[in-house]
Amino acid sequence: MARALLLLLLLTCTVSTTTSSKLPPLHTYFPRSASDASLFHTQVPKGPKINYTTHYFTQTLDHFTYTPKSYKTFQQKYLLNSNHWDSLSGPVFVYTGNEGDIEWFAYNTGFMFDVAPQFKALLVFIEHRFYGESKPFGDDSHSSAETLGYLNSQQALADYAVLIRSLKRNLSAEAAPVVAFGGSYGGMLAAWFRLKYPHITIGALASSAPILQFDDMTPWTSFYDGVSLDFKEESWNCFDVIKGGWVELMALSEQKEGLMELSRTFKTCKDLHSVYSARDWLWTAFVYTAMVDYPTRANFMAPLPAYPVKEMCRIIDGFPRGGSKLNKAFAAASLYYNYTSTKTCFNIGNESDSHGLHVWDWQACTEMIMPMSCSNESMFPPSAYNAKESGDDCLKKYGVLPRPHWITTEFGGHRIYEVLKRFGSNIIFSNGMKDPWSRGGVLKNISSSIVALVTEQGAHHLDFRFATKDDPEWLTQQRKREIEIIKKWIDEYYADLKKSSI
Amino acid sequence: MARALLLLLLLTCTVSTTTSSKLPPLHTYFPRSASDASLFHTQVPKGPKINYTTHYFTQTLDHFTYTPKSYKTFQQKYLLNSNHWDSLSGPVFVYTGNEGDIEWFAYNTGFMFDVAPQFKALLVFIEHRFYGESKPFGDDSHSSAETLGYLNSQQALADYAVLIRSLKRNLSAEAAPVVAFGGSYGGMLAAWFRLKYPHITIGALASSAPILQFDDMTPWTSFYDGVSLDFKEESWNCFDVIKGGWVELMALSEQKEGLMELSRTFKTCKDLHSVYSARDWLWTAFVYTAMVDYPTRANFMAPLPAYPVKEMCRIIDGFPRGGSKLNKAFAAASLYYNYTSTKTCFNIGNESDSHGLHVWDWQACTEMIMPMSCSNESMFPPSAYNAKESGDDCLKKYGVLPRPHWITTEFGGHRIYEVLKRFGSNIIFSNGMKDPWSRGGVLKNISSSIVALVTEQGAHHLDFRFATKDDPEWLTQQRKREIEIIKKWIDEYYADLKKSSI
Repeated sequence: MARALLLLLLLTCTVSTTTSSKLPPLHTYFPRSASDASLFHTQVPKGPKINYTTHYFTQTLDHFTYTPKSYKTFQQKYLLNSNHWDSLSGPVFVYTGNEGDIEWFAYNTGFMFDVAPQFKALLVFIEHRFYGESKPFGDDSHSSAETLGYLNSQQALADYAVLIRSLKRNLSAEAAPVVAFGGSYGGMLAAWFRLKYPHITIGALASSAPILQFDDMTPWTSFYDGVSLDFKEESWNCFDVIKGGWVELMALSEQKEGLMELSRTFKTCKDLHSVYSARDWLWTAFVYTAMVDYPTRANFMAPLPAYPVKEMCRIIDGFPRGGSKLNKAFAAASLYYNYTSTKTCFNIGNESDSHGLHVWDWQACTEMIMPMSCSNESMFPPSAYNAKESGDDCLKKYGVLPRPHWITTEFGGHRIYEVLKRFGSNIIFSNGMKDPWSRGGVLKNISSSIVALVTEQGAHHLDFRFATKDDPEWLTQQRKREIEIIKKWIDEYYADLKKSSI
Repeated sequence: MARALLLLLLLTCTVSTTTSSKLPPLHTYFPRSASDASLFHTQVPKGPKINYTTHYFTQTLDHFTYTPKSYKTFQQKYLLNSNHWDSLSGPVFVYTGNEGDIEWFAYNTGFMFDVAPQFKALLVFIEHRFYGESKPFGDDSHSSAETLGYLNSQQALADYAVLIRSLKRNLSAEAAPVVAFGGSYGGMLAAWFRLKYPHITIGALASSAPILQFDDMTPWTSFYDGVSLDFKEESWNCFDVIKGGWVELMALSEQKEGLMELSRTFKTCKDLHSVYSARDWLWTAFVYTAMVDYPTRANFMAPLPAYPVKEMCRIIDGFPRGGSKLNKAFAAASLYYNYTSTKTCFNIGNESDSHGLHVWDWQACTEMIMPMSCSNESMFPPSAYNAKESGDDCLKKYGVLPRPHWITTEFGGHRIYEVLKRFGSNIIFSNGMKDPWSRGGVLKNISSSIVALVTEQGAHHLDFRFATKDDPEWLTQQRKREIEIIKKWIDEYYADLKKSSI
């Protein structure tokens, strides 16, 4: 989800105005250039190869109304891996897909493949409606609110419930316990799935799920403060350079021939038309790098070395004397876009969207309203959250207004520690504190079975990645704890089942 | 809900065919004549007068899609009683309205008025969308699937969540604990509301809520077996007469001038056009009387004496020698329609619907699929459940097909004792075993806080009625237990709140 959610942030943390400085529509906020896009699956190893078969399920368009149109169906994609499944006693592990093509999430959720053998589990990765190939209206799916209207989290959860129930019946595995897995928005879905559909899933592992990022539950500045802290903790100078870079950027752009100069500085393939393209390009690099500040080389948002924030700061701190802050910031950001050194120029302002994440913009305009602002203490230009302006943008783009309090009405969140202390069970909220999204997550145990696993050095759903020989011990321990807890859920389930059939 | 749900039963328990013997459309199944309708609120005392103020809330038409149409709003009616409310520390008791005008349910949920003073509670009765005055499309609301499509239980629950949140904010009572109350279908909604919206309500008292009446969770014969047992327990002869009456009815109708003869026997105001009108008239009387077999005089479905099943059987058993079974059955059924002896003839086949319950037919055709059949051992003509035929009828009437497994997918029910043993809390399922719906209810404790309160002599949400001086001790004790449990929930809530603010 990372990238897609970030789109929202880029809008909400910067002052959006109606002048020429206004940010371009959210769905163009894909900093990766067309050539970058191909990096995902080609130039850097994805880790161990994964096996799956691809399937399609005839899904109901609208579970919650019964107008003739709502009976329309579409083909929902899902992936299966039954290599290790014991169909008599093995559990079903379901990834509750988030805002992109499902293969991408499968590749980046190696944890499920790693643990499948010991659990003898069936793996199922379900694609979220309107993403990837699961487009209810084909090529017209994203054309307007008339079609996009059916894209939201509640419909997605109902999809998962219907599909899982049908799949289990077809596999004659109706008694098999189901555990939901999800990362980021997918983690929110996994947690909510357990809360709303406890009869379908016995538990959920929700990794980096910022379910408290709505309304006023988490300070609006927390996300960007989190990004800033990651850099500040590496080096004060690094933080200070980036913070100062924005000022230099804007100052330069206001000079005569400033954009030309910027184009040269940023090594753009084509001349920049707006300073905001350059700003967002930098912004994205720092934010995503903080999110995926993994302790090992990885390729989730982009191919990056281990501890990429440290690497960025090393670039800044080691920059030759006399370099401007902007030059240093650019050099650091280049790590994100060109770690593999394959580029000679950058397609800034003309990014592609290889995983189809742009559709998130609709969700961010309707239900996923996560207010964000940048405090004076962050390394980003200060800005306030402007609900009115965001709403007006959405109205203009889609003809509909955000429902800012709907998610907390439907899924809760306020006073979650008190509410779930005496309600619900079997959810793991895992978070890495390097991940700025962790601030909107559940960071303390709620009850004996709704627990928080927090790692100080972890990043955005790091625990979901394939284990590697380079993994630090704390990461290995975190995964081990997750496995123990899930095993407990399954054992308990079978013990209850046995008792009930006596 | 009683009556409206029964409509469904009438269809499902009798063999519906495509010949002239086919049952008329469900929504005409209102056995009470126009003149009867007025009985509800005029001729028999309703019990203590109730006080409330009437309000309207601007509600979203479709919570779960975001097409431009779904942003349409409608005025949802709700009633308030704040006579005893302590706005600083009193709870909010919400009745989750079911399939009729909300005043009717308020009048028949005296329990909430009875307990309001000791709890210092605010009472809120929310009308279910598409019933009473809460019609999203005004007079066109019930015209077709295009409008009716928005009528279902999930939208109704979301309505309650949105309204309650808004109401509490407007009353500056955001910290007040909410307890949901509901009887029959309203009880299902109350229980589901607690399960789906634990952040909105701290607990639910679900009275006579047959949440297990779906799919194959409860034997399909159980409802009519339950009705039959009520009569059989009074007297074998009574059971036997009613069982034999159907045969005589059909035989008589097949004779020359049979319908004329039947019209005389049944004292119809106008000549009968179909034997099925007479059959359904009898059927309704026996079924509803079993449901409302209250130990005191009451007027819920109809004005009736205390223990009306006993009274019916007394009529049958005391009938002059030589009377036919049909004549006896008619005499017994007349108690239901004419206890107050105000009628000289019956408007059979031309019934009115004073509470707007007929709209339930739509819900029964889409989501509320509760299969029913009549076993050879029941006092009703044997019949099988025919899903195909029911579905065809719905398709013909509304252009949509039932979703027979949707309710259990959305709300669960299968293996409920295992699923909720380790999930959820604070639900009371109260049932009276005289009520045939009790068979589809939760009759055993699920956990320490999801409990069943069962009374052997209780009937359909009897506990929700105003206390009277004639109440038997077991009923008084049941209500006392309910009050104790609810008090515990509220105390626990405030203790948690206090701890969290320290």
